Amino acid sequence: MKSIKYGVIGSGAIGGFYGGKLAQSGKDVHFLFHSDFDYVSKNGLEIDSITGNFKIFPINAYNCTSEMPKCDVVFVCLKTTNNDLLKTMLLPLLHEKTVVILIQNGLGTEADLQKDFPSLQIAGAMAFICSAKVGDGHIKHMDQGSISIGSYSCQDNSVLEQVDNDFKASGIESNIVDLDAARWKKLIWNIPFNGMSVVLNTTTDSLLKNSDTRSLIHTLMLEVIRGANAVGKGQFSLDESLADKMISTTEKMVPYAPSMKLDFDHQRELELKYIYQKPIVEALSSGYDMKCTQMLLQQLRFIQEGYFTK
Amino acid sequence: MKSIKYGVIGSGAIGGFYGGKLAQSGKDVHFLFHSDFDYVSKNGLEIDSITGNFKIFPINAYNCTSEMPKCDVVFVCLKTTNNDLLKTMLLPLLHEKTVVILIQNGLGTEADLQKDFPSLQIAGAMAFICSAKVGDGHIKHMDQGSISIGSYSCQDNSVLEQVDNDFKASGIESNIVDLDAARWKKLIWNIPFNGMSVVLNTTTDSLLKNSDTRSLIHTLMLEVIRGANAVGKGQFSLDESLADKMISTTEKMVPYAPSMKLDFDHQRELELKYIYQKPIVEALSSGYDMKCTQMLLQQLRFIQEGYFTK
Repeated sequence: MKSIKYGVIGSGAIGGFYGGKLAQSGKDVHFLFHSDFDYVSKNGLEIDSITGNFKIFPINAYNCTSEMPKCDVVFVCLKTTNNDLLKTMLLPLLHEKTVVILIQNGLGTEADLQKDFPSLQIAGAMAFICSAKVGDGHIKHMDQGSISIGSYSCQDNSVLEQVDNDFKASGIESNIVDLDAARWKKLIWNIPFNGMSVVLNTTTDSLLKNSDTRSLIHTLMLEVIRGANAVGKGQFSLDESLADKMISTTEKMVPYAPSMKLDFDHQRELELKYIYQKPIVEALSSGYDMKCTQMLLQQLRFIQEGYFTK
Repeated sequence: MKSIKYGVIGSGAIGGFYGGKLAQSGKDVHFLFHSDFDYVSKNGLEIDSITGNFKIFPINAYNCTSEMPKCDVVFVCLKTTNNDLLKTMLLPLLHEKTVVILIQNGLGTEADLQKDFPSLQIAGAMAFICSAKVGDGHIKHMDQGSISIGSYSCQDNSVLEQVDNDFKASGIESNIVDLDAARWKKLIWNIPFNGMSVVLNTTTDSLLKNSDTRSLIHTLMLEVIRGANAVGKGQFSLDESLADKMISTTEKMVPYAPSMKLDFDHQRELELKYIYQKPIVEALSSGYDMKCTQMLLQQLRFIQEGYFTK
């Protein structure tokens, strides 16, 4: 099997790390940068990781997709709030068999992309990682680091399996999963921690130390699990014990500001559509009302409107 | 019928206004002050009211209940967070037939006081008023101003009727109501607006201008009404149309920081027990789960813990 040519759209805390690991292990990876382009072209991409620091230099860096080669696999690691750009940005990268993998949070991103590219092979991936961009061309990886990949509309799993192998060869814990179940499973964590850290202006550790918010986190997690199971209709189902397990795992993590908290602190648009709105609408159309999640979304929209109208 | 000797425990935005109106109309009113005592003794109590400014000077001011006369009617206008003080503070004011009227927010204050004074005649009152203490011995009355009084354990309604008449004679819109129904009715407003203004650090007008929080306010109001009706079990019942009505009324009010928002801004303890915890527990014991109200309480407790441990 010939080796994969990778493209990374959005080379920040997620794309820079996972693409960087592949590049470091010798894969052919092409990175799209935005504000960091000049810096990275001159200095490379530096990654401080709990599994060992490394630097990609020289690096295949671009600041426009029209200059990038056609790729076999494209990782989309943009914030979902920028997904409306994909319609034009992706075009130069696509050949007939390109597989686009959305390493993004939330639910429904693949379906929306498929509307714009009806014959494109699309997959989704969930990154389980605490990482952050800490400076120009500088990423810090603080905890965890696995990735789960699932097909949305791939003809078969062969390309995804090769990606999975490439990740493993680069030292990343990777696996292939059922996309719907995995997207919902990730929401069990994302829905409570992202929103609550913004509304209460805090971090994961404080939310778990306080018995009231710890209990509320558990309530929200159960609501997501029940929403998932209403939507799954027996095709997939998530066990309610996952709530306690995720709380324990989070407790062992370093105190962490979820990505939405970082967006909030930098007054960037919040990823409300795919992390909150789509799951709520899907669950409701399957007969389950995610009342507390809806309340959290309403509070988040108020906060967001506030800082966009300041 | 002999005229009533009134005592006011807590002469702030509520007690100062309602007691002040009675004193201005010639009634015999005795005021307990805390930090304002020296100032008020020298300068009197000044009330800037939309119905006409006035000043009570000289004034029957005290800084300790042991110096006050026994009273026929005592208004308790403390924050409910100070109600544990009543056990000792009230004693000097009570004669055999004293009626204590709790002009306080929330549910269950009368029951808790009755535990400490099993034979005391107790009533409750709801103040519908926008007023605030704006300086030493200085109260500003900005909007509304009616009061509703209901018996909790009075032998009959005769004293309450006389109080009602005294209020009317002083120019205050007053009426006698069913206490349980009225306490719940007031919670329809207090539960959403107090908590949401703290969690989202805002005022009533902003909460109603934003379509998401406006909808959430409505959801919370419906939850309170349904909680009330579960507890009322047919003995009293609140119509769901009250939610829309209260939202309309609030929209016509001047932009307003509810009392809990003022407590928050001054880092005072929040009145969570009687405004949130008791109603949630009562409704749940009648089979209704106030899920969003519970979420709001959990958020509020987190916020409160944060500023008490700073």
